[in-house]
Amino acid sequence: MSVKAKAIYTFQSENKEEISIQENEELVIFDENSVDGWFQGENSRGERGLFPASYVEVIRTRSNSNVTDCSISPAGSLGNDSSYFPSTPNTTLHMQQSYYDDDDDDWDDWDDRSTVVDDDHSRSPGANGHSNQSPLSNNPNIHYRAKPHMERQDSISSSRKGSMVGRNLNRFSSFVRSGVEAFVLGDVPMMAKIAESYTIDMGPQGPRWKESPQPFSCSIEDPTKQTKFKGIKTYISYRVTPSHTGRPVYRRYKHFDWLYNRLLHKFTVISVPHLPEKQATGRFEEDFIEKRKRRLILWMNHMTSHPVLSQYEGFEHFLMCADDKQWKLGKRRAEKDEMVGAHFMLTLQIPNEHQDLQDVEERVDTFKAFAKKMDDSVMQLTHVASELVRKHLGGFRKEFQRLGNAFQSISQAFMLDPPHCSDTLNNAISHTGRTYENIGEMFAEQPKYDLFHMLDKLSLYQGLLANFPDIIHLQKGAFAKVKESQRMTDEGKMDQDEADGIRKRCRTVGFALQAEMSYFHQQREVDFKDTMQAYLKEQIAFYQRVVQQLERTLRMYDCL
Amino acid sequence: MSVKAKAIYTFQSENKEEISIQENEELVIFDENSVDGWFQGENSRGERGLFPASYVEVIRTRSNSNVTDCSISPAGSLGNDSSYFPSTPNTTLHMQQSYYDDDDDDWDDWDDRSTVVDDDHSRSPGANGHSNQSPLSNNPNIHYRAKPHMERQDSISSSRKGSMVGRNLNRFSSFVRSGVEAFVLGDVPMMAKIAESYTIDMGPQGPRWKESPQPFSCSIEDPTKQTKFKGIKTYISYRVTPSHTGRPVYRRYKHFDWLYNRLLHKFTVISVPHLPEKQATGRFEEDFIEKRKRRLILWMNHMTSHPVLSQYEGFEHFLMCADDKQWKLGKRRAEKDEMVGAHFMLTLQIPNEHQDLQDVEERVDTFKAFAKKMDDSVMQLTHVASELVRKHLGGFRKEFQRLGNAFQSISQAFMLDPPHCSDTLNNAISHTGRTYENIGEMFAEQPKYDLFHMLDKLSLYQGLLANFPDIIHLQKGAFAKVKESQRMTDEGKMDQDEADGIRKRCRTVGFALQAEMSYFHQQREVDFKDTMQAYLKEQIAFYQRVVQQLERTLRMYDCL
Repeated sequence: MSVKAKAIYTFQSENKEEISIQENEELVIFDENSVDGWFQGENSRGERGLFPASYVEVIRTRSNSNVTDCSISPAGSLGNDSSYFPSTPNTTLHMQQSYYDDDDDDWDDWDDRSTVVDDDHSRSPGANGHSNQSPLSNNPNIHYRAKPHMERQDSISSSRKGSMVGRNLNRFSSFVRSGVEAFVLGDVPMMAKIAESYTIDMGPQGPRWKESPQPFSCSIEDPTKQTKFKGIKTYISYRVTPSHTGRPVYRRYKHFDWLYNRLLHKFTVISVPHLPEKQATGRFEEDFIEKRKRRLILWMNHMTSHPVLSQYEGFEHFLMCADDKQWKLGKRRAEKDEMVGAHFMLTLQIPNEHQDLQDVEERVDTFKAFAKKMDDSVMQLTHVASELVRKHLGGFRKEFQRLGNAFQSISQAFMLDPPHCSDTLNNAISHTGRTYENIGEMFAEQPKYDLFHMLDKLSLYQGLLANFPDIIHLQKGAFAKVKESQRMTDEGKMDQDEADGIRKRCRTVGFALQAEMSYFHQQREVDFKDTMQAYLKEQIAFYQRVVQQLERTLRMYDCL
Repeated sequence: MSVKAKAIYTFQSENKEEISIQENEELVIFDENSVDGWFQGENSRGERGLFPASYVEVIRTRSNSNVTDCSISPAGSLGNDSSYFPSTPNTTLHMQQSYYDDDDDDWDDWDDRSTVVDDDHSRSPGANGHSNQSPLSNNPNIHYRAKPHMERQDSISSSRKGSMVGRNLNRFSSFVRSGVEAFVLGDVPMMAKIAESYTIDMGPQGPRWKESPQPFSCSIEDPTKQTKFKGIKTYISYRVTPSHTGRPVYRRYKHFDWLYNRLLHKFTVISVPHLPEKQATGRFEEDFIEKRKRRLILWMNHMTSHPVLSQYEGFEHFLMCADDKQWKLGKRRAEKDEMVGAHFMLTLQIPNEHQDLQDVEERVDTFKAFAKKMDDSVMQLTHVASELVRKHLGGFRKEFQRLGNAFQSISQAFMLDPPHCSDTLNNAISHTGRTYENIGEMFAEQPKYDLFHMLDKLSLYQGLLANFPDIIHLQKGAFAKVKESQRMTDEGKMDQDEADGIRKRCRTVGFALQAEMSYFHQQREVDFKDTMQAYLKEQIAFYQRVVQQLERTLRMYDCL
């Protein structure tokens, strides 16, 4: 859905897919969901291409409450805003399975606009949210055709994402957008009272988030089809039960999505887990619902175990509010939250302990290298595991069933042979045939018990890893500012206090990033141990079942 | 190697691949090893195609000792005779791996002429002996190209063979050639003294061969490469040790082949097991030697356990003779044996018990239907099992190795992550990687333990089953003669005594066939029970090994 915008800075295109824009120039944006901080649109000279989202101001026709937001909100955070606009005919055209409804509180139309079909498990969650906010997203066909290509892109993985971010970096885009620049430069006014506060303390391996005072978990169960408007609209609702209240609330995907976008909006330096991808077609097919549930559970586990995210007021609202009216109020309150982006940095309590900025930068670089390698290997494993799923459902099953059939036709031949034929042998052989047909089915079933779960976990991690380049970039930007201020003071262009302030606030960014790094490590350690153990256990159980089947079959030959 | 021949009967072609020949017409035969009783050659009008081997007389340039033979010898029995002819330059052209030598006792040149390359295990043993005696066999290239096609042909299996034989049947070829016609008509003079005699008695399920008075078994071991003429010629020799003497003799494939052709020659109504196929290229490659040895062992077991074949004098000579001079003498004696083909029928002692010819014919028809169905299903299983072998060596192995690599690169990524990374976890994961690479290898190895043996057994049975249509056809011919004689006596054109004689001799053929049928059944029963049990046992052992590997790997995660 295209909207008007105005350039607030001049931008000189450097790559062929970019277009230059002049300050104050009128622009058209084809899809206002920016991708990695870039809009696709047309300038006043009719050139079409990409330009930085942070360089323009979207012109609102109805509400302009989000205009300022838009320049400081992280990539993709505008996802929800689009729902504020009534859908144009051409979007309704390719709306699938549900009708547009104007309920401000209902984003299924928007949810539906995402047209990525998720028919296998190889889709890189790294593309979550992004891919269906891509400039092309309001042309489903292009999406369908483009998909395999997208996968290839994914498999090139963070290296490409990196380069994309690299470009942003040159333009300070996410650094600017996130408001971290403003924060470091001290342009973010200290508030009178800050209700929330998150503490970073020093652990044996450096800075870490202070554990949440009241840790809890949360179950997601029982996805059920609901209808409204006499069945015109259908949706799935999940029973969400936090352990500390024990009172269930019922949430739809769009509620998760609302929460997700709040999180992106608020927690600048935190890797917010991606939601399972959206899809329009087959949204009500069992496999998809099952898969989405499994992945929402992983998402929820990461949320509840994260010392900062788990304490977010909006999250609490999401977990507890059972009343419709209350829901809307709480929703508005969360959307009005001022401690977002840059201001969120003000809520961080860091230890006084001195850290040499040089060391921090080195640590961050080590982590950056690790994250890239991990992203690559997670991608590789995702591809292999998805291939293996296909083999289980296809090749393996087929081979064993063929063998089964062949044995059966042997025993059928033998039955043509009275009086010589022994029924015991014929039965044994035809039972062997059935056994192998069975084993074929077992192969086809097995991914449900092992590979799917592994793929879910990998998908979560691809999402988490995809966030880090941006976050690391914030810290890099902060460092740059420190060095710059250092130089300026040396040249006497900045007084020491200001420089010290910048250095101090840069430390905050550094501590926050390190805390988030160490949380990621700690989780990774636990998650991959569990995942590998669970996989091996299921594999063992599977091959043991095969052995049992064969042993039972073998016994049939003993009585001969 | 093409030879001259003369048509002894006129033959009118009925299918496009056939050519017509006139009595006394001069013909050229491209390959004098007939295929299912058909020669490929050229008539005096330059037409090229197939005509019945039994309608022509090969014109010998050097020795014509075999001329009469050739018209009564069963299909393919001429295989050895070709060695009597010096190889022409164009054959030596594509002789591979060994040089032609003129030693009358050495058939490697001929052995080499067969150019079927057996690089996988899918080759239908149904084509044994035949395929490498095929008209095309002195052009290896055609063979290589033709191979997949040949496989397809095989898979159409006995239905085609059937029709082929059916054609022979119309021409009475094998009936005439085998001499059974002559026998039934009483044209085979009773000998003064008949040294050998084989008894058929009545078992619970009808006629059967009387057990051999001294049953024995025979091992084939230790194939070793031998050279002669200062290494110009190389060949493989096997240590053959009969249980009743315990004295080993050393035999080459060509000795087996000599014996095989003697058996075809002599035992008209018995299904002689085919030898493992010949091949020129890669004759000295381990896999091939291994496979040939396994299949010679199966062949030998069938020989030693067969009540009639096991008692054959030529076989005894093959098993016992250790002295070169003695060998040649015994060989000549066996080749001079008069009790072959028609005369062999004279050596059969049948019970006096009356059998209604109608019943016998029905039994034979039932068996015929069974044999066809069994041939089809054995073919099907052969194809499936061969496909499975390929999958084990290819797809399965690849999938598991990929998974292994993916796990390893995960652990490599984790190692980039000090101080957070836990060596125990990283080792466990990389060990999991190695385990799956291992499992991939185990899949690739497994066919050696199960599928290969099954394929060997199936190959033996395809050979045995391929013989029956001809044998059944003999009995059909005999029945026809009985009915004919009946009619003639009714019309007073034949006196009763002669008709009774025909009927009596026809009973002998019937008894012999039934005895052979019941022997086949008895063996099939045993062989397939053993094969299936062995297969299942190996499969169980395999999956148990997989389970053990995985369990060992899983334990590495416990200490975390």
